[in-house]
Amino acid sequence: MSNHIDFYFDIISAYSYIAHKKIQKIKENKNIKFNYMPIFLGGLHNLAEINSPAFNKYKIKNIQNDCELVSKKNNISFTWNSKFPINSLSIMRGYLYMNEKQKENYLDIFFNAYWRDNLDLSLEDEVIKLLKILNINSEVFFNGIKEQSIKNNLKNLTNDAFKKEVFAAPTFVVNNKIFWGQDRLEYALDELSAN
Amino acid sequence: MSNHIDFYFDIISAYSYIAHKKIQKIKENKNIKFNYMPIFLGGLHNLAEINSPAFNKYKIKNIQNDCELVSKKNNISFTWNSKFPINSLSIMRGYLYMNEKQKENYLDIFFNAYWRDNLDLSLEDEVIKLLKILNINSEVFFNGIKEQSIKNNLKNLTNDAFKKEVFAAPTFVVNNKIFWGQDRLEYALDELSAN
Repeated sequence: MSNHIDFYFDIISAYSYIAHKKIQKIKENKNIKFNYMPIFLGGLHNLAEINSPAFNKYKIKNIQNDCELVSKKNNISFTWNSKFPINSLSIMRGYLYMNEKQKENYLDIFFNAYWRDNLDLSLEDEVIKLLKILNINSEVFFNGIKEQSIKNNLKNLTNDAFKKEVFAAPTFVVNNKIFWGQDRLEYALDELSAN
Repeated sequence: MSNHIDFYFDIISAYSYIAHKKIQKIKENKNIKFNYMPIFLGGLHNLAEINSPAFNKYKIKNIQNDCELVSKKNNISFTWNSKFPINSLSIMRGYLYMNEKQKENYLDIFFNAYWRDNLDLSLEDEVIKLLKILNINSEVFFNGIKEQSIKNNLKNLTNDAFKKEVFAAPTFVVNNKIFWGQDRLEYALDELSAN
């Protein structure tokens, strides 16, 4: 029986951003534990032989409209990123490079930069600005995320997620049950409260 | 401004079945008009260059679990069809072959047979049993659905849906806005009530 919700996310995923914002609101009012489980969504899609919706023009237009609607209904500030998609590998490796104290801030700042402030995070200059806010030396950061151990870490976490039958993001896991999509956070909470 | 909700569906789609049941419950209590818009989902997916989730083992397992959960939460009788997927072309052509009085019953009976009673509707014998309940001569039916006009009708309806940017099912359309998925029926209702 789980005493928490595992939350699988990639910063490139707009619905992961929405889920993250919903989680933050829940945590303001309730004592519910969420374990943040970073994955590389592109790699996960490959493992599951899923064509990313990012590359289908009909789906992606729908996702944009839908994210705007869902955000509005949930009072979440949201702007569709005009440079979507970008490769999220460096950003997600960066999350793993942070120490436990830095991780939460890093995630907030990068999520907001991409899905609220419409910044182009494929540009090193934009990333450097965010690192400054976090008081992180950018040279150390860019060297750090190239370390083999960091690369392996993200790869292993993504493989581990897939072994647990997570195939996309955001995904919530409670009692080994998979709840895919920000729409299903409510169901994950129900599953947890039934424990 | 729409005075109704267009509901695009294919009987092969489990979420279309769930949406249909939700619509029926809404109509018991509220005076809201739904236009039933039949399409051939396989054809629509082809037009939109979408790989059907029916053919991805990870997605389909998730859809099965999710349909069971959503049905339970909404008090809808549901059984995942053990013969999913089948080709829905004949069943959807059959819907178009019905006159306006027959259509509603036909849809109910075929939806229930496939997504509640787990019948194998790829078997002609099972279809004949359902036609008997509807008091429809099966020989006339099987000849009727082979008529070129019926074939063209389903093809044109599917093409028309795609021209309106419908790319999957179930989809609700209000004020030319697309709401994809049974989860978004609520949003379509909001859009309608804002008129």
